[in-house]
Amino acid sequence: MELTEKRLSTEQIFDGRILHIRRDLVELPDGTQSVREVVDHPGGVCILALDEENQALLVSQFRYPYERVVRELPAGKLEYGEDPDAAAIRELKEETGAAPGEFRSLGELYPSPGYCGEIIRMYLARDLSFGETHLDADEFLNLERIPFSQLVEQVLSGEIKDAKTIAAVLKAKLLLDL
Amino acid sequence: MELTEKRLSTEQIFDGRILHIRRDLVELPDGTQSVREVVDHPGGVCILALDEENQALLVSQFRYPYERVVRELPAGKLEYGEDPDAAAIRELKEETGAAPGEFRSLGELYPSPGYCGEIIRMYLARDLSFGETHLDADEFLNLERIPFSQLVEQVLSGEIKDAKTIAAVLKAKLLLDL
Repeated sequence: MELTEKRLSTEQIFDGRILHIRRDLVELPDGTQSVREVVDHPGGVCILALDEENQALLVSQFRYPYERVVRELPAGKLEYGEDPDAAAIRELKEETGAAPGEFRSLGELYPSPGYCGEIIRMYLARDLSFGETHLDADEFLNLERIPFSQLVEQVLSGEIKDAKTIAAVLKAKLLLDL
Repeated sequence: MELTEKRLSTEQIFDGRILHIRRDLVELPDGTQSVREVVDHPGGVCILALDEENQALLVSQFRYPYERVVRELPAGKLEYGEDPDAAAIRELKEETGAAPGEFRSLGELYPSPGYCGEIIRMYLARDLSFGETHLDADEFLNLERIPFSQLVEQVLSGEIKDAKTIAAVLKAKLLLDL
């Protein structure tokens, strides 16, 4: 079955600090029309950083949409036009102070393909050296080191719910036999 | 460090067909104020359904925000107030025609905790019997059966990028030793 949807027109709905929303009129594969509401997003990065004792760096942040603290891998949004590798190294340094000697991709993630075009690039960072953190003005987080095997257990038990964290941790476990 | 953010006021920005956006003024842990833009979402479900030959049911859909076809597990949004287990069984039936004899949770997923409160419940379904599909009027998809081991390979290689699919497939692999 042909699946492609064609844009007929687009309307900017909201241009916020973080969210940029448009509403497009599209032609569906059967020739009828429908509306697609889209969150435009510059993309993001997340980093599974492991120290020399195979402990992962994890951050706890108050995630306002859930009204609770969520434990996640260090992560952040791309600046528009920023190289994802550079963004990952920047975010890791800002949130944890760590700079990696070894750095490799763990692939891409589509968090919410139904309504958002965000691509999260996932990375593994090792051979870490530590300096100072540099958080954004409205960013508050607690930093934790947790043995990687324990983090895997917390993912499998359901205690860790953040999508990028689940994906990066389990891909690393299976790809690298960690 | 205390991390909680307190809502001071809320403003409805957009009330769309799918997206519901609000902008809240919040008090940060240090007493200063900031703005949080939030996508309100009723929550979703996704189902890893395995047939008697251990083949997974996968759907291909045109995902308009990415302007491409994306391969994913069967999934859908909750109706407001709908029980997640019932929604998962409904969505699986609608998209694939399958009804499971065995049905269990694979945990919860937070796709985009920075700006959206969506919770996706993940399930494993087995012992399938097949009837007719019932797609929504504006829903077009192709259905595929793929050996579970091959699906795991496609997740690990990065070919599968959808967050809920990566999470459910790798959790099932490691939890159930599939």
